[in-house]
Amino acid sequence: MMKRVLSGMRPTGRLHLGHLKGALENWKKLQDNYECLYMIADWHALMSDYASSENLSENTYQILLDWLACGISPEKSIIFCQSKVSSHAELYLLLSIITPIGWLERNPTYKEQIKELQNVDLSTHGFLGYPVLQAGDILLYKATTVPIGIDQLPHLELTREIVRRFNHFYGKTFEVPEALLTETPKLPGIDGRKMSKSYNNAIFISDQEAETEKKIRTMITDPARIHPTDKGHPDVCNIFSFQTAFNLPRAKEIEDLCKEGKIGCVACKKELSLCVNEALKEPREKRKTLEKDRKYLLDILNEGNRYAGKIAEETMVKIREKVGFYG
Amino acid sequence: MMKRVLSGMRPTGRLHLGHLKGALENWKKLQDNYECLYMIADWHALMSDYASSENLSENTYQILLDWLACGISPEKSIIFCQSKVSSHAELYLLLSIITPIGWLERNPTYKEQIKELQNVDLSTHGFLGYPVLQAGDILLYKATTVPIGIDQLPHLELTREIVRRFNHFYGKTFEVPEALLTETPKLPGIDGRKMSKSYNNAIFISDQEAETEKKIRTMITDPARIHPTDKGHPDVCNIFSFQTAFNLPRAKEIEDLCKEGKIGCVACKKELSLCVNEALKEPREKRKTLEKDRKYLLDILNEGNRYAGKIAEETMVKIREKVGFYG
Repeated sequence: MMKRVLSGMRPTGRLHLGHLKGALENWKKLQDNYECLYMIADWHALMSDYASSENLSENTYQILLDWLACGISPEKSIIFCQSKVSSHAELYLLLSIITPIGWLERNPTYKEQIKELQNVDLSTHGFLGYPVLQAGDILLYKATTVPIGIDQLPHLELTREIVRRFNHFYGKTFEVPEALLTETPKLPGIDGRKMSKSYNNAIFISDQEAETEKKIRTMITDPARIHPTDKGHPDVCNIFSFQTAFNLPRAKEIEDLCKEGKIGCVACKKELSLCVNEALKEPREKRKTLEKDRKYLLDILNEGNRYAGKIAEETMVKIREKVGFYG
Repeated sequence: MMKRVLSGMRPTGRLHLGHLKGALENWKKLQDNYECLYMIADWHALMSDYASSENLSENTYQILLDWLACGISPEKSIIFCQSKVSSHAELYLLLSIITPIGWLERNPTYKEQIKELQNVDLSTHGFLGYPVLQAGDILLYKATTVPIGIDQLPHLELTREIVRRFNHFYGKTFEVPEALLTETPKLPGIDGRKMSKSYNNAIFISDQEAETEKKIRTMITDPARIHPTDKGHPDVCNIFSFQTAFNLPRAKEIEDLCKEGKIGCVACKKELSLCVNEALKEPREKRKTLEKDRKYLLDILNEGNRYAGKIAEETMVKIREKVGFYG
């Protein structure tokens, strides 16, 4: 039997190149070797931004469009929405009941996020339980393989702890899931910080070609380089990480030319813009077509929700029996 | 339209006289003037004792038997089980997301219970969210009237705060519920402490007559009274509070006789035993009959779950729309 993969993203708006390179390209590949469940984590989105939920519905469609545009296929994978499968809430409640608060308070991501997202008051009961909901996501589908970046390891470790505790109280029910560590290129935003919608420094998959080119043009390169003939330092240049991601066959050559002062930043950016726009050409066209057909998008979600719901309910039947509810 | 009342109990085993006098007799009366929903709070039971859930199913039947025996009627009220209406978990998750941790940590009941129930580790995420689940219980059925004792006021105040916060973020959705304070006699256990199954000092509704008599016989009365002719102090006598609860027409007379040293403790207890057993005669017979018909019990719950589930889902449809989930 194919191993099952679960992964998800919070619907917070249109996706950018960080998502493409950090997750979607990997997800696309996984589809051929695993049974993949890709989840629009709208409950998690609400957890991180409960006070401004007015775009939640629209963001759900936007993320779906980006996924489909980038090759996540409803023929190969189960694409579904977390809030539409009621078992997620049920397992959240159950795991919440057995999870010690100390485990959650010590979670390093929790502390970081509270510090980082200072415009939202995240000292809520739900946000503290963020990894509890995540653990439920994974367990409902008995996903044994979880593709994550190294920064998410503490979350998965919490899931593993929760699984052990559940098995201890109610008898062996779940396998302890394993991380599928995937190395992905880190793409900075156009200001050099981490690419993020909230920093207003992102290049979106669905940007126009001219927009993309303009954003790349304004990016800061090697700050020590003033004239095009100065010797460059690709290792500290924001643009160079994009060259590796979008222009790999030429990256080594550009690196050498830059170091020797034989290619200027303007030319380098121009070449990169062409490559990025070329890579996004097909996704963008596909997205344009799909945008018009909301009925089709709804159909995909309905079908995915139904399928995911069936798997999840099967798991819940076993869980309820193990815990000892009547009936 | 009839006002709607919601109340519930955790299924922790057979019910005792404290439950009868503290809640059930009041519940029985409410049935004629309100639309009553009576909930077997198995999620809450799990919250307070997640590590030993092996009796959860049996306890659910036991509590239902006691309710029915004491006159809670499936013809008049909706009797249902919390875990079988999935909206409870869904609303728990949603309210968990908007509830500040500080509100929960400051809840006096939380601190007390953690101190009181020292054999269970209650510093869990779920137990901290105990009042969040309770708030959901009330809101799902838009119960505007909540019959509680004065000691539960802080919990209801939390519900009221959560309602205000929900309405603030997502627009006016719920009425702020009101307490229906009910004064009920405080019955001590046979050792003088609060009557509680876990203190092993309870007289159960389903005890045998001889058992009841024996328990009453061993109760400590006025400690200053040594001979039956000594003058008694009914105000400090454990038995006397039972006389008020079960032998009201004679209570004043017994009080006077005791004060004058004209009735001894043995005689007083004998009379009380007769009264208690008389009061429990019908419930006990009814319980015996019902015990044999588990199918009937299941039918009552199925019907109640279905009915409660329908009301709850109607509320959830509105809530999901207000919050802004897609679809």
